[in-house]
Amino acid sequence: MPAEPLRFLVTAGPTREHLDDVRYLSNASSGRMGHAVARAALAAGHRVTLVSGPVELAPPPAARLVEVVSAEEMREAVLAAFPDADVVVMTAAVADYRPEKRVSGKLKKTGEALRITLVPTPDILAELGGMKGDRILVGFALESERGEENAREKLVRKHLDLVVLDSPRAIGAQVSDFTILGADGRREHHMSVSKDFLAQRLVSLAAEARLI
Amino acid sequence: MPAEPLRFLVTAGPTREHLDDVRYLSNASSGRMGHAVARAALAAGHRVTLVSGPVELAPPPAARLVEVVSAEEMREAVLAAFPDADVVVMTAAVADYRPEKRVSGKLKKTGEALRITLVPTPDILAELGGMKGDRILVGFALESERGEENAREKLVRKHLDLVVLDSPRAIGAQVSDFTILGADGRREHHMSVSKDFLAQRLVSLAAEARLI
Repeated sequence: MPAEPLRFLVTAGPTREHLDDVRYLSNASSGRMGHAVARAALAAGHRVTLVSGPVELAPPPAARLVEVVSAEEMREAVLAAFPDADVVVMTAAVADYRPEKRVSGKLKKTGEALRITLVPTPDILAELGGMKGDRILVGFALESERGEENAREKLVRKHLDLVVLDSPRAIGAQVSDFTILGADGRREHHMSVSKDFLAQRLVSLAAEARLI
Repeated sequence: MPAEPLRFLVTAGPTREHLDDVRYLSNASSGRMGHAVARAALAAGHRVTLVSGPVELAPPPAARLVEVVSAEEMREAVLAAFPDADVVVMTAAVADYRPEKRVSGKLKKTGEALRITLVPTPDILAELGGMKGDRILVGFALESERGEENAREKLVRKHLDLVVLDSPRAIGAQVSDFTILGADGRREHHMSVSKDFLAQRLVSLAAEARLI
């Protein structure tokens, strides 16, 4: 056990934004990053609440698990757990658009084109950033271009302590390249590392920052 | 081994229809139904080609596996394997709409609503029905209302030998209710049965039909 166990709130997986009861918008997030963070925090003696979108992984038994489907449900679960958290690590690939309307049942196929309107989902990370207090807030930035510039901008705008920059290639991959940027100016490149390695590094950086 | 081993072509899983490199339209098909049919056919001594969308399941090692992502890729893989098949069991929940355009990289979030056009994907089952010859063709109908009427209509229109009617509740469920309808007038209800049970029943009905 560490001198002072911290309370981690970790989000994982994708969200699904339903167009009808069958079809949805989503992404290929496996949940492995969030599960790795949850395991690393538990292994370091901390407590963990894991808010997870639909994934095919068995959660660490010692974590308190909250299962959600949509971005809106994830927002509610995160806001409910936030007051009791010391460190918040948002690994979930929350869908940032949802269909404006959800049809009940299954939309009947007509053979014609279908025009739909997608509206932005709530930006949970930005919302938490605005009320973080002395919590440590860690976000991920999945960028396909001008990565470091966009990630740094996100760090500042959302009041994050740490942001991890990855690329679409990291989705589902076993090892990948990551850059960790810190509000303190930190800049770490990790090349071809596993999600477990990255998770351990994030947990120790976040715990250090919280305990300073 | 059966008197005459048949060549099964089985499709499984969802397809993903990408809007950009990260976001896609899909559905919650786990691939379990198709994997169960592949296992049941192999266990009965038949040969199996399994064309699978993205799933988190280990395929039966004795099957020839073809992995695909989109409906268009599934169509190509199925058409390539079709000439050598005796029995075709289409369990895949092929997305029936795709975004008209796929953006390369990741669409940048603007905070504004996004209007997109969805266009129908090719109807693989109908296409196969039109050139089935003496192959046995088995389809699934996922219907949220007027199920049996819609499933029977699909059976006739797509020249199927058997159609399995299930409901959105069957997605991801351990046991479920199914109705099997046959071109020969067959009508079987199976209540609260597993996908393995249904798979074995389909394999024996299809093999019987092919060998008559």
